[in-house]
Amino acid sequence: MSSGMRAETDAIVIGAGPVGLFAIFQLGMLRLKCHVVDALPAIGGQLTALYPEKPIYDIPGYPKIVAADLVHRLTEQAAPFHPRYHLDVAVEGLARLPDGRWEVTLSDGRAMIAPVVIIAAGAGAFGPNRPPLDGLAAFEGKSVFYLVQRREQFRGQRVVIAGGGDSAVDWAISLSDVADRVMVVHRRPKFRAAPESEARLAALAAEGRIDLVVPYQLHSLEGSDGRLEAVVVATTGSQTRRLEADALLPFFGLASSLGPIAKWGLEMDGAQIRVASSTLATNLPGVFAIGAVAGYPGKLKLILQGFSAAAMAAHASHAVARPDQALHFEHSTSTGVPVA
Amino acid sequence: MSSGMRAETDAIVIGAGPVGLFAIFQLGMLRLKCHVVDALPAIGGQLTALYPEKPIYDIPGYPKIVAADLVHRLTEQAAPFHPRYHLDVAVEGLARLPDGRWEVTLSDGRAMIAPVVIIAAGAGAFGPNRPPLDGLAAFEGKSVFYLVQRREQFRGQRVVIAGGGDSAVDWAISLSDVADRVMVVHRRPKFRAAPESEARLAALAAEGRIDLVVPYQLHSLEGSDGRLEAVVVATTGSQTRRLEADALLPFFGLASSLGPIAKWGLEMDGAQIRVASSTLATNLPGVFAIGAVAGYPGKLKLILQGFSAAAMAAHASHAVARPDQALHFEHSTSTGVPVA
Repeated sequence: MSSGMRAETDAIVIGAGPVGLFAIFQLGMLRLKCHVVDALPAIGGQLTALYPEKPIYDIPGYPKIVAADLVHRLTEQAAPFHPRYHLDVAVEGLARLPDGRWEVTLSDGRAMIAPVVIIAAGAGAFGPNRPPLDGLAAFEGKSVFYLVQRREQFRGQRVVIAGGGDSAVDWAISLSDVADRVMVVHRRPKFRAAPESEARLAALAAEGRIDLVVPYQLHSLEGSDGRLEAVVVATTGSQTRRLEADALLPFFGLASSLGPIAKWGLEMDGAQIRVASSTLATNLPGVFAIGAVAGYPGKLKLILQGFSAAAMAAHASHAVARPDQALHFEHSTSTGVPVA
Repeated sequence: MSSGMRAETDAIVIGAGPVGLFAIFQLGMLRLKCHVVDALPAIGGQLTALYPEKPIYDIPGYPKIVAADLVHRLTEQAAPFHPRYHLDVAVEGLARLPDGRWEVTLSDGRAMIAPVVIIAAGAGAFGPNRPPLDGLAAFEGKSVFYLVQRREQFRGQRVVIAGGGDSAVDWAISLSDVADRVMVVHRRPKFRAAPESEARLAALAAEGRIDLVVPYQLHSLEGSDGRLEAVVVATTGSQTRRLEADALLPFFGLASSLGPIAKWGLEMDGAQIRVASSTLATNLPGVFAIGAVAGYPGKLKLILQGFSAAAMAAHASHAVARPDQALHFEHSTSTGVPVA
């Protein structure tokens, strides 16, 4: 992408989870504008992706609020400041420009520039746990899939499903209706899915409509040009079996990782970015980290702590983005919400 | 009060404002019980006493919430833990018992004992600003009043009102209906009340129904046995006037002060109690300070910061109140609210 298509703003917020959303609001209260990047296709981070229907009890002033509702209210609270959301796109590079500002490049080739970067990446970007198989990438999206978008795609196919949880069991049951053959590879004889689903799986296996390949683990893939021919599985004792197959569906859950952010030169404390507890500043000037991704003494794993950190980071950001303006503290009851 | 009437609990929370209320909740989540003391007659601190109808815009997840509603929601959130509220009573003494716990004595003679004391006293206890006049205390409640409870009390009296704000102007107008004479003492010719009220005051003064004694300040009181005979006022140039009067109403606004807490041996930073930012611990073991009363680096004057501090202090309190129990962190989404 040409340099002409780089967005310039006051702050780049990485992560549109609850803490990132509140950072937008706090930046807005200080009249700082922002762009927000998230690898997920929807706003809300884990609250939307992992537990939208779970009640949360420890948000101050909410004796009980369902996660999706909290996301909705935080989005509404940030809306007057017209944040620019860039969803379903990952951050890649961070580079300091000669004028001291930061350029963040995105996985779709775009770039954005700001004096302030606030990393509110939670536990990192979510993605499927990939099995450690040689040559896996060549098959992904062609005959290896981490989610099923259309069941019909597998009609008449020989499908290997790997995993022992709800996703593996439920999709085995579902695809047994359309696939030519369904094989379920699990490293233990015992599955860990809802009891009703497990009973249904056992019944279909007894009828010969599903093959339970247990206790086996994935060993290697055979095929070419992204077209799978067989999945080789092995016991811990190194006995192998070759399963002729058209498709492999590994269901090993979701994992999160900081991805490229881990290579930006940030000082880390284990998996967390080390920050100063009073400003949430990292070792890179103008770069802050808040919420689950930030590590500082006394940190509690509460969304509330992330909200508080967002407020502190926004105030510290003001000095970076508006070095020539003094920040006079005013209560929101006096000022209301400034017009963006 | 005899020692048999001392309440024993896990934590004594001083201040039932928003931050104290959230501390009750956080203590409860960790299964710590508490008693709560507040000098005001109602729960909610400043939010209830000073601006119950003002909207607040910077509580996370509330794009807008009226102060009284926030107090209501926080009270509801704390309720499952059955806090014991002691309202309209001030704290007086703090003493360490031989077993390491703290005894807090109250202005009504009662006492309470706990291993943990959390000071969430906001800006301190509220009270009227008193004019610096010799012998003032002897007249208070007899012929000097800081608020008007019944207008009829002043029927036929000669009343001196001191001050230039809304309270002084509005009460001068109101009492001019019933009093024999109303004199308004203000150090400047210009008042600072609502324009409509100022116009009404000027009109009544022009009619001779109110005497504007400007620019004068209170100088001394004359009278005996709490019975006022005259108020002496003076210009900055030391010209004096003697106003024969039955009552004086000084309206110089409300002030707050830590009162006896300032004498508990706590290390201070100006008007704030110095705390460690990661635990909110003061220099006294087991005594914490949170919210407006606490001072630490990077502190912002946001209710949100007090909420976050309440969570941190509650967690740090657990180690003090339950030294033999490890604290395993659990998300509220997993545990819900423990049964108190």
